[in-house]
Amino acid sequence: MNIDIPKGYRFAAVHCGLKSDPSQLDLSLIVADIPATAAGVFTPNLVCGAPVLVDRNRVPGEGFRAVVANSRCANACTGGQGIRNAEEMAALAAQTVGGNAQQGLVMSTGVIGVALPMDKIRSGIVAASQKLTATANGFLDTARGIMTTDTKEKYMTKRLTLGNGNTITLAGICKGAAMIAPNLATMLAVIMTDAALKPVAAQELLRNSAEESFNCISVDGHTSTSDTLLLLANGAAQPTPLDGDHLELFAKTLRELCIELAVKIPEDGEGASHLITIDIDGCKTRGDAKTMARKIAEDALVKTAICGADPNWGRIVSASGTAGVRYDPKKVSLKLNGFELFKNGEPVPFDKTIVSASIRNNRATHILLTFGEGNSGIRFWTTDLTTEYVRLNSDYTT
Amino acid sequence: MNIDIPKGYRFAAVHCGLKSDPSQLDLSLIVADIPATAAGVFTPNLVCGAPVLVDRNRVPGEGFRAVVANSRCANACTGGQGIRNAEEMAALAAQTVGGNAQQGLVMSTGVIGVALPMDKIRSGIVAASQKLTATANGFLDTARGIMTTDTKEKYMTKRLTLGNGNTITLAGICKGAAMIAPNLATMLAVIMTDAALKPVAAQELLRNSAEESFNCISVDGHTSTSDTLLLLANGAAQPTPLDGDHLELFAKTLRELCIELAVKIPEDGEGASHLITIDIDGCKTRGDAKTMARKIAEDALVKTAICGADPNWGRIVSASGTAGVRYDPKKVSLKLNGFELFKNGEPVPFDKTIVSASIRNNRATHILLTFGEGNSGIRFWTTDLTTEYVRLNSDYTT
Repeated sequence: MNIDIPKGYRFAAVHCGLKSDPSQLDLSLIVADIPATAAGVFTPNLVCGAPVLVDRNRVPGEGFRAVVANSRCANACTGGQGIRNAEEMAALAAQTVGGNAQQGLVMSTGVIGVALPMDKIRSGIVAASQKLTATANGFLDTARGIMTTDTKEKYMTKRLTLGNGNTITLAGICKGAAMIAPNLATMLAVIMTDAALKPVAAQELLRNSAEESFNCISVDGHTSTSDTLLLLANGAAQPTPLDGDHLELFAKTLRELCIELAVKIPEDGEGASHLITIDIDGCKTRGDAKTMARKIAEDALVKTAICGADPNWGRIVSASGTAGVRYDPKKVSLKLNGFELFKNGEPVPFDKTIVSASIRNNRATHILLTFGEGNSGIRFWTTDLTTEYVRLNSDYTT
Repeated sequence: MNIDIPKGYRFAAVHCGLKSDPSQLDLSLIVADIPATAAGVFTPNLVCGAPVLVDRNRVPGEGFRAVVANSRCANACTGGQGIRNAEEMAALAAQTVGGNAQQGLVMSTGVIGVALPMDKIRSGIVAASQKLTATANGFLDTARGIMTTDTKEKYMTKRLTLGNGNTITLAGICKGAAMIAPNLATMLAVIMTDAALKPVAAQELLRNSAEESFNCISVDGHTSTSDTLLLLANGAAQPTPLDGDHLELFAKTLRELCIELAVKIPEDGEGASHLITIDIDGCKTRGDAKTMARKIAEDALVKTAICGADPNWGRIVSASGTAGVRYDPKKVSLKLNGFELFKNGEPVPFDKTIVSASIRNNRATHILLTFGEGNSGIRFWTTDLTTEYVRLNSDYTT
């Protein structure tokens, strides 16, 4: 895949001793050489990490110089010291490029309830500042430094040319493989662009994009303490803040990038053997469709059936009936991988062997559930539930 | 355990060919020799089984003569033919003791979306009617005939003496091991008593008891299409409907019986290696406490941590933060198996090896989560999530 790096950013990641394997990166630093507008959406979890508390007070805003992120320790449920540590991380990151303490942002992911080893973090930020680079490799390293149980780095870039001839670039990284059920954001993600945006516009664009992307994925239904999605816009390639047609084109590209990034998370879901795409149609409102999609996406019985290539469609229909959305069961129809299994409330005879094979032989599974209540729908992504997920999560801290 | 059978009931179960193993019972018949008052609480799932639709129209009421129940096929998502089949089952059951079609009740559990093989059901009811007995063995057989993935039959009996010297008996059976997250009832349960109750009183007692028992358990968060809890009261030992102190004493005993029966379900949860008791305290309302308890009970990350004897308490606190109940995170404390791990929003240092051993070496696990918002609390029961649960549910229909 071609990697396009937006202008005016530099990247680095180092191993500072948080992960036990010294070959694994565990601290990422992104700097904006031109101060950037920043927007952010965050976890709605009442128990949120210290970095979320710090960043949420700063964005949307202008003049940001750096984002620092570490893996292996979430700095959540860590009391007053946790907040002071998060503030210090953000300050040290901004200071590496001459910024002040308020011009930094911070993200942490990993175990909850453990204090950050600040000596390692401090020397990690210094080490990272000495190898900052504007190359694709530096960019990829930052995606690697935030990985926890992810099996691969997750990134996406897009380039577009505006009507005025300026070419602008969007580049994003994200991480996450479990504790994934974002409600206002997802685990950790940073998107950078060299276009300029006003803070209010940036915030609105980011929130709308999150709504159709990071808020439409779930691995295990647990909304993390640390979900953070940041957008940086430094204007290096297009100094005038985007508006009108340009803003609209940018919004469309941002939405596409967010969706493509977000889907990488269930695609790499812990232990997953299937990426399940759930299309809900025929609802009264988009909110109804989303509630329904999430209920199905997070249902252990639906997820284990797909894992076992079992076309046990009753579990899907049954899950939809408990989502708290009123509908007429006689107007419900279901297709699984294109095979019609249930039509207007009645079962349709089908060849179990063929449908089962269509699940077993493809990593991608498609569920289309149609109601007769209206014209609203949604697309949602999730994983199956495998013995490997249970194994991975049975001994995370011990 | 001593088994006390209430007067005026007879029991039988047979193998009628629904389960593949001919040694396994798959159809249960309970008859009331004296017409009984019946009450019931049912699944709130919009997609509910045909037996639920039939019974819900009949109870609370008087004059009931029989309950028939089958395993292996839920008769849900089966359209108009499903309703006609459920009505026929109830009618055939009542007719075995000379009752009319409206005096029967019916329950079905098993795969969704498959039609009942009515020839087997019809001859099964006839065969069962020929071996009806008032013995403990007959009673135990009815508990076995409704088992699906349950590893043992579930039953409980209680006897109490009223102020007037009459001794009355309560006896209940239930089944369920997965697709368990009752909201108004649970999978299948029938409670019989030889006291007399008025229909409205019976319904109120049953609903209140369910609220603290079957509605406080969850295995996998999936509220079934078929959850049904029935109470029969035939007055054989105490013909005058209970009221005053007698009614209160009965209500207390019924509540205890319901709790003891309900806990047997997560105790036998599919693949479970731990029964987890969750005590929530210090909430504004009992409803808040229940919402919080359910969120924790159904969290895959909490359940896998317990499976792995991992005292990863951050997952418990984090899950509570997403339940949709407002609280001050600085007033939250957590004990796991009696060990204090989190106090007033700050982590408490603890010996991981000792706490982990306390989980590993006991099937029973206890979580006590205390908030500082009020004086309401609740007790809730769930299972851990194991690789065995995933294996069992990955090939149920295929």
